[in-house]
Amino acid sequence: MELSTLVEDGQPGWTRRVFSDAYKQSRALVKTMMQVAGLAVTLDPAGNLIGKLGGGDPELPPLVVGSHSDTVSAGGRFDGMVGVVAAVEVARILAGHGGALRHPLWIVDFLGEEPNQFGISCLGSRAVTGHLTAEHLALRDETGASLGDALRTSGCRPDELASTRWPDGSLHAYLELHIEQGARLERAGRQIGVVTCIAGISRASIDIEGRADHAGTTPMDLRRDALQGAAELVLGTEVIGRVQEADEDGVATAGRLLVEPNSTNVVPARALLNVELRSVFETWLRNRSTDLETLAGRVASSRSLAVTVQWVSQGDPVPCDPRLRRILSQSAARVGTVPLELPSGASHDAAHIARIAPIAMLFIPSRDGRSHCPEEWSDPWEVTLGAKALLQAVLDVDGAAL
Amino acid sequence: MELSTLVEDGQPGWTRRVFSDAYKQSRALVKTMMQVAGLAVTLDPAGNLIGKLGGGDPELPPLVVGSHSDTVSAGGRFDGMVGVVAAVEVARILAGHGGALRHPLWIVDFLGEEPNQFGISCLGSRAVTGHLTAEHLALRDETGASLGDALRTSGCRPDELASTRWPDGSLHAYLELHIEQGARLERAGRQIGVVTCIAGISRASIDIEGRADHAGTTPMDLRRDALQGAAELVLGTEVIGRVQEADEDGVATAGRLLVEPNSTNVVPARALLNVELRSVFETWLRNRSTDLETLAGRVASSRSLAVTVQWVSQGDPVPCDPRLRRILSQSAARVGTVPLELPSGASHDAAHIARIAPIAMLFIPSRDGRSHCPEEWSDPWEVTLGAKALLQAVLDVDGAAL
Repeated sequence: MELSTLVEDGQPGWTRRVFSDAYKQSRALVKTMMQVAGLAVTLDPAGNLIGKLGGGDPELPPLVVGSHSDTVSAGGRFDGMVGVVAAVEVARILAGHGGALRHPLWIVDFLGEEPNQFGISCLGSRAVTGHLTAEHLALRDETGASLGDALRTSGCRPDELASTRWPDGSLHAYLELHIEQGARLERAGRQIGVVTCIAGISRASIDIEGRADHAGTTPMDLRRDALQGAAELVLGTEVIGRVQEADEDGVATAGRLLVEPNSTNVVPARALLNVELRSVFETWLRNRSTDLETLAGRVASSRSLAVTVQWVSQGDPVPCDPRLRRILSQSAARVGTVPLELPSGASHDAAHIARIAPIAMLFIPSRDGRSHCPEEWSDPWEVTLGAKALLQAVLDVDGAAL
Repeated sequence: MELSTLVEDGQPGWTRRVFSDAYKQSRALVKTMMQVAGLAVTLDPAGNLIGKLGGGDPELPPLVVGSHSDTVSAGGRFDGMVGVVAAVEVARILAGHGGALRHPLWIVDFLGEEPNQFGISCLGSRAVTGHLTAEHLALRDETGASLGDALRTSGCRPDELASTRWPDGSLHAYLELHIEQGARLERAGRQIGVVTCIAGISRASIDIEGRADHAGTTPMDLRRDALQGAAELVLGTEVIGRVQEADEDGVATAGRLLVEPNSTNVVPARALLNVELRSVFETWLRNRSTDLETLAGRVASSRSLAVTVQWVSQGDPVPCDPRLRRILSQSAARVGTVPLELPSGASHDAAHIARIAPIAMLFIPSRDGRSHCPEEWSDPWEVTLGAKALLQAVLDVDGAAL
């Protein structure tokens, strides 16, 4: 709740986006929380805030627990924050018991997990796994600024990204507590979820170029209206999202659209549309990406528009580590819950860390399944129970040979 | 060309919108031009810049010649400016000949003719005809500021609008020179157009409210996606614009769309769409407005969205004064051109002044019919010929009993 007071001025809901002043303030608060908890805090070149607690055996690789503290525009107070705050609390308790763990414990607040104005997400977790590339850094927002510039301005050191890399196998395990953001736990009357698989996400940035003309003097049949083309792609995205194929399904969303010049009396010259596809099924994702490209080609030729589809990210579904899943189910049972195994429709920093370490995730319920909106809510006792399950999981995973 | 150097920083094309600093600078330049031409310059409470030249008979009502110097976003250098600059030049020549006219001559640069962030156009010409209402002044932009506030901030006195009113019948005539913004003159190989009728415009602001949800965890069939509803309305607008009914036609444009929260991974909660219908046929306009409302209702019920259609302006087609049309055709012939009679698909300040005075308009060609875009162009000799025809028209209308 203290974190949630740090929001961007004049923005709806609980907005704290990655390059905002509010985000800078929130991270100063997280840093203080980590220090008060007894952790040694560093900010890596990628902007990840890391609090470290020594383990009983300094030779062992660290056990890492993380999440993020940024939000989407008009977002909520729980997505990401629950995982950061609970992880710091777990570390605080363990620090108070002086070396209760064998492994060093790292608590990580990853930089900018939500998609930003450059069209990509998970900046921090991409960076530590070596997947924040020079191409990403060259991505530009509407104002023409590059992601690299934005990182530098906000105190990161993008030129030193190579040094921040976590090598393959260098972690004992990665755990993340998060809100479900769906309604499966609530409907099942369960308090703790253990994630089986994180959905893959393919994100496309679609640039539709037509021609600006006077809206009063240009006959309908002489127009090359970019917004008309975008509207066809928006409706087509919904059709694509409803496709079921061989029992496999997913979702498709046209979430972001910018129109130029966006004047009532000018035929739109250009539209920039962001579309994402999500599924735990690789084949579904691949086939729907093809569907979207086919549709874009059809819209371009039928309307004399220039339409380009750029895939800004294409992440495969990520299964959680089967041994960790078993351990986390037992941990959840030990704190008195009956865990539910469920997939994650949302992606998480964990999906990136899976490239270099075994990962697992715990979910707590989201009221009405609402998320990425001001109404996002989990009851305080649900958050507390999640933190208890996370503490138990850290203890159990620390003791396990993986 | 000097006016066109005053554009908004960081905006595309030749952008000089009504409440921008660039607009303030441009009006200081127009004021200087008027003063150099020998006119007595005043700024009325509605922000209209008026340059006055005394006539031979001070008892006679003024002959008014006007246009505007603001642009749409990413607009051009001729729409509006040609009419202002040519009118000032006409006045300069007449002032140099000391009292060549019987009537006082007023040259007017009307405030903000183009649609602005408050969704209305023709601020200045509405005001002098008593049609800038308290309701208009209360309209708000995205930031929550009202039009009244914006006017006050930019040096106007909206509380004194009543005193700026031009009574019915208080003008001898109103003339306006403008670029055609279409391609009829060019196709016909003519240099001067005499306008028969100005298209009526109905502008709707459509507010579509759905529900923000997480784009990864909300199944397709549980969504209330505002952008999907907006896309149906965008495509429906095009269908409506193509309707021909009893030989009557028009155009329909969805030119402006704002999406909230406009994030790649959030199901859109809200969309604000601006649609306009234009036609020189009243029945067509009325029937298509009904079509749009019917469509909005269908989209609302089929998608569980709240859709409200607000008509922010509904202007009937405005015929030009038949006597003035005849005089202007003769004036155009006197300067050596063969004028073309044609309707105006675009609206103009003249359409508002028609409420209180006889009006007429002269057009010059627009290359390729392009307008409201950076490519907007009329050759210097075409502008010069337009100014000559305007001077002749002013002399001829001054001498006529209307």
